[in-house]
Amino acid sequence: MTYGVGVLVKDGLLMAADTRTNAGLDNIATFRKLHLFDVPGEKVMAIATAGNLAISQSVISMLREGFRNPDTDRVETLIEQPSMFKAAQFIGHAVRQLHASDGAALERNGVSFEVTMLVGGQFRGSAPRLFMLYKAGNFIEATPDTPYLQIGEHKYGKPILDRAVSYKADLYDCLKLALISMDSTMRSNLSVGLPIDMVVLRTGGDDWEVNRRIEAGDHYFHDLRERWSAALRKAHTDIPAPPYRD
Amino acid sequence: MTYGVGVLVKDGLLMAADTRTNAGLDNIATFRKLHLFDVPGEKVMAIATAGNLAISQSVISMLREGFRNPDTDRVETLIEQPSMFKAAQFIGHAVRQLHASDGAALERNGVSFEVTMLVGGQFRGSAPRLFMLYKAGNFIEATPDTPYLQIGEHKYGKPILDRAVSYKADLYDCLKLALISMDSTMRSNLSVGLPIDMVVLRTGGDDWEVNRRIEAGDHYFHDLRERWSAALRKAHTDIPAPPYRD
Repeated sequence: MTYGVGVLVKDGLLMAADTRTNAGLDNIATFRKLHLFDVPGEKVMAIATAGNLAISQSVISMLREGFRNPDTDRVETLIEQPSMFKAAQFIGHAVRQLHASDGAALERNGVSFEVTMLVGGQFRGSAPRLFMLYKAGNFIEATPDTPYLQIGEHKYGKPILDRAVSYKADLYDCLKLALISMDSTMRSNLSVGLPIDMVVLRTGGDDWEVNRRIEAGDHYFHDLRERWSAALRKAHTDIPAPPYRD
Repeated sequence: MTYGVGVLVKDGLLMAADTRTNAGLDNIATFRKLHLFDVPGEKVMAIATAGNLAISQSVISMLREGFRNPDTDRVETLIEQPSMFKAAQFIGHAVRQLHASDGAALERNGVSFEVTMLVGGQFRGSAPRLFMLYKAGNFIEATPDTPYLQIGEHKYGKPILDRAVSYKADLYDCLKLALISMDSTMRSNLSVGLPIDMVVLRTGGDDWEVNRRIEAGDHYFHDLRERWSAALRKAHTDIPAPPYRD
């Protein structure tokens, strides 16, 4: 499994994804699931993937290598798309083309065609945008009402986002919340694990403000986990005992 | 959907379940999902159910009305079973018999036979026990290593239990944690909602120490939700900002 989260706030965009993949509990490996595309000074895009690794890797290869875009009838790559919206549509086409070529064979082998993606980025002169793309190639977009989107094993890490992320929140506060959300997921689900890849983009910026991997020995992340655990313990001990005893 | 949680610690047992059922978002109702069985001074048992409501209600009716127990070849009810283990086996037989009679018809109508249950209780002279029963009628039991079990929409409320519940924890601390877990689930999933039914049983006690419903206006639960939210907000604002900016 995977956990990926993207947050789009007034000040910018962030995306984070773990790197653990598993084909059964006895076949665990580390694969980067946050893929970056950029033309310096012009556009930056990131794609976080969840689902079948063969499918998501093939889609990323198609996006880099190019394929016939049915909207233009030309062979194109992702990076030459003219807007975030066109980029999301183009990724949808890649997913559909892969489904057309591989879907039946996968199904014959009892493998369902599963892939979801977060697609975020910014084109010069436009605000950052964040999409979540489904296996049918369709997608939804984050808005000020719902400024975060998640893929993969999303439930464990949702409560903290539901409570604390808002469109007007500080960008780095949201990064902290995304990491807390990641921590909650990793604690409750073995299939999500370090390292964590993350990017942060400021509205109007022309490059990633953060483009980093959090490894197992990362001091800040370790401290965040300890502090969060201690705060939760304190939080529940500070609540009075239930008065329900009859 | 449903959320049900049971915790078995040194001092006793607690179980809690929400009451919301839904057959589509436009068909939401309140049904009790925590069912009590007792012979005062002799034995107390509670069953929390998740899954298809028709199935779980029929199983509860079978347990009260009696059916032929394949282990004894006599018509028996749940309450006459001689131990918690025998009670869990008997419930498993009820689920299997219902599957034998209704499973095929459900399947023809595209409804899968889904039911899970938490079964907890205590017989005089024995320690409390807690089981989770699957739709095949098989079951697992809570142990000091893993003292809590969940049914239904379990992921949102799992992180707090993972962090704070242990076999040596205070019984009412665990009730508080179960209610926090319930709150997290209700905030993130519309299909889980108030009222909440709960029971608490002390090791060696011969009756429920708590047997209560938390309604929407409950002062303590409202306060717990507010305090927990405030503590989470404070917890994350107290953590320093991520130092990852390049």
